[in-house]
Amino acid sequence: MAVDALGGDRTPDEIVAGAAAAATVDVHPVIYGPEALDALGLEHVVTTDSVEMDAKPAEAVRGKPDSSLVRAVRAVGDGEADAVVSAGNTGAVLAASLLHVRRLPGVFRPGIAVVIPTQHGPSVLIDAGANADARPEHLLQFAHMGSIFAEEVLGIVRPRVRLLSIGEEPEKGNQLTLEAHVLLEESSLRFDGNIEGRALLQGESDVVVCDGFTGNVALKTLEGTIHSLLGALRAELETSIRGKAGGFLIRPAARALRERLDPETTGGAYLLGLRGLVVISHGSSSRVAIGNAIALAARGIEHDIVGRLRETLPERVVESSRSTNPSDTRG
Amino acid sequence: MAVDALGGDRTPDEIVAGAAAAATVDVHPVIYGPEALDALGLEHVVTTDSVEMDAKPAEAVRGKPDSSLVRAVRAVGDGEADAVVSAGNTGAVLAASLLHVRRLPGVFRPGIAVVIPTQHGPSVLIDAGANADARPEHLLQFAHMGSIFAEEVLGIVRPRVRLLSIGEEPEKGNQLTLEAHVLLEESSLRFDGNIEGRALLQGESDVVVCDGFTGNVALKTLEGTIHSLLGALRAELETSIRGKAGGFLIRPAARALRERLDPETTGGAYLLGLRGLVVISHGSSSRVAIGNAIALAARGIEHDIVGRLRETLPERVVESSRSTNPSDTRG
Repeated sequence: MAVDALGGDRTPDEIVAGAAAAATVDVHPVIYGPEALDALGLEHVVTTDSVEMDAKPAEAVRGKPDSSLVRAVRAVGDGEADAVVSAGNTGAVLAASLLHVRRLPGVFRPGIAVVIPTQHGPSVLIDAGANADARPEHLLQFAHMGSIFAEEVLGIVRPRVRLLSIGEEPEKGNQLTLEAHVLLEESSLRFDGNIEGRALLQGESDVVVCDGFTGNVALKTLEGTIHSLLGALRAELETSIRGKAGGFLIRPAARALRERLDPETTGGAYLLGLRGLVVISHGSSSRVAIGNAIALAARGIEHDIVGRLRETLPERVVESSRSTNPSDTRG
Repeated sequence: MAVDALGGDRTPDEIVAGAAAAATVDVHPVIYGPEALDALGLEHVVTTDSVEMDAKPAEAVRGKPDSSLVRAVRAVGDGEADAVVSAGNTGAVLAASLLHVRRLPGVFRPGIAVVIPTQHGPSVLIDAGANADARPEHLLQFAHMGSIFAEEVLGIVRPRVRLLSIGEEPEKGNQLTLEAHVLLEESSLRFDGNIEGRALLQGESDVVVCDGFTGNVALKTLEGTIHSLLGALRAELETSIRGKAGGFLIRPAARALRERLDPETTGGAYLLGLRGLVVISHGSSSRVAIGNAIALAARGIEHDIVGRLRETLPERVVESSRSTNPSDTRG
């Protein structure tokens, strides 16, 4: 498994440490990074360049073929690695994946699938940020990919699919969701209608579909609110002796909760719709997050998520293409 | 002040009770609703019809001129009331306001302005749901209206404006935010660039601008996450004796926090850009929320927010019109 040692804000030490901790008899992380780094005994492919976190994706991928990011992603495309994990520039990972791993037949756009830990088990949010602008037929494909993922990796039978919108009624939404709603209604999916942002953590849905802009805003709002709220509670407790005592007593419970909801616990997100397995981690990932991201990638290999998508998508893709308005030439 | 007694899920008792509690020497709520209701001694304008929460806005407003919602909104347009508060169908309140209160000169679209209680004081999110599809020049106007609101009602000098997007870098976003970013950069506003969903509660911004779809998803995600998280913490604490004791001790702090963050504490949102003051409340509003919404409306009257927008917007609207690409004929 290829690991980009220079992806993220805490490179290369946290990345390599996370990879070393995640190594098992079955999982062999291979470090892609500069000669000077200490690979902690892991296999090390030396690369000479790096992609900045704020670099322009297309330029970076074309201009830096020997960067750790591009080389690690290419290893999957070339069949040298069964998966890649990078906490680097998301746009660059996406661009490198499109170029070197390539899309599965019939897939319009890959989507980022994030597992959200709800009150009643995991739920998949797709797209969490790969496509800032999307068309209705893209959302239909995200729904199919998210469903296959929920079935195969999460073991959910006939996953319930919902469309993220601004009201549960079918007529609530923007132009994109109104059109996507019709496609989802007509599809073979188990479509349960719209879902509002307030229900994301309630577990009423196995797959939540949206464009990458909305998904990214919702996901970051969710993460930020958890962070701010626990911080505010801590500050509030500090203002009284009673609060301090209470804060001490609730510590184990708060820690369990934080651990369940912390994005580091999942470690990363799958980029679905490609011919190989790509896992994207938060730029701020610690060694714990990287270790979990590698475990997530290993789970995807074990369940052969790419093979399952390759087998199952074509029949469903026919459906998406049928639903597509051929006169629509936007984007 | 006109109050729609049949707006929301808990009508008319909670609405009337909230209005009665909010009445002061200066604030005179007038109840718009059916003859049969008990107005608790408040002035009562009898109406004969009601708008359902899931009714189609335009149809409801045209077809039900004697509904409590339309009559209460019209009272502002006709100069009989200085403001209106409704927890009814948001789309219908918007449609009735466009028809009977009408837009201020030069305003493309009214926007819903919600006050978010951040760690460092209030911040205005606009648009929180009036316009599911918006154009870049609409976002620029929302930014101006939000700024004037922050200055006049919240007393913030030179408010910092930020654009809700999926990365802080100017090149991160969708087509809408990329174009809006340019307009905001060129404007006379104190524009501090993009903000991500994760920072909404951190108070790094006085005004957060977005289209109504994104704003509504972000706001509901924020509210839902607070609700789910406090619920999950309570459940977690119930699982051990230590947790139960801690839960008892932290109760006052948790309550203070919940009260600060609870949308009921603000009570409602202004619909800005109209010739009169319209306040929209949550459909689920309790008497407490309605009372706070009436206080919010009273504050808007006291600060003459409509007059300030009328005076200040025109010079800024010239700027928005100049920034608008005249060849753009979408929507």
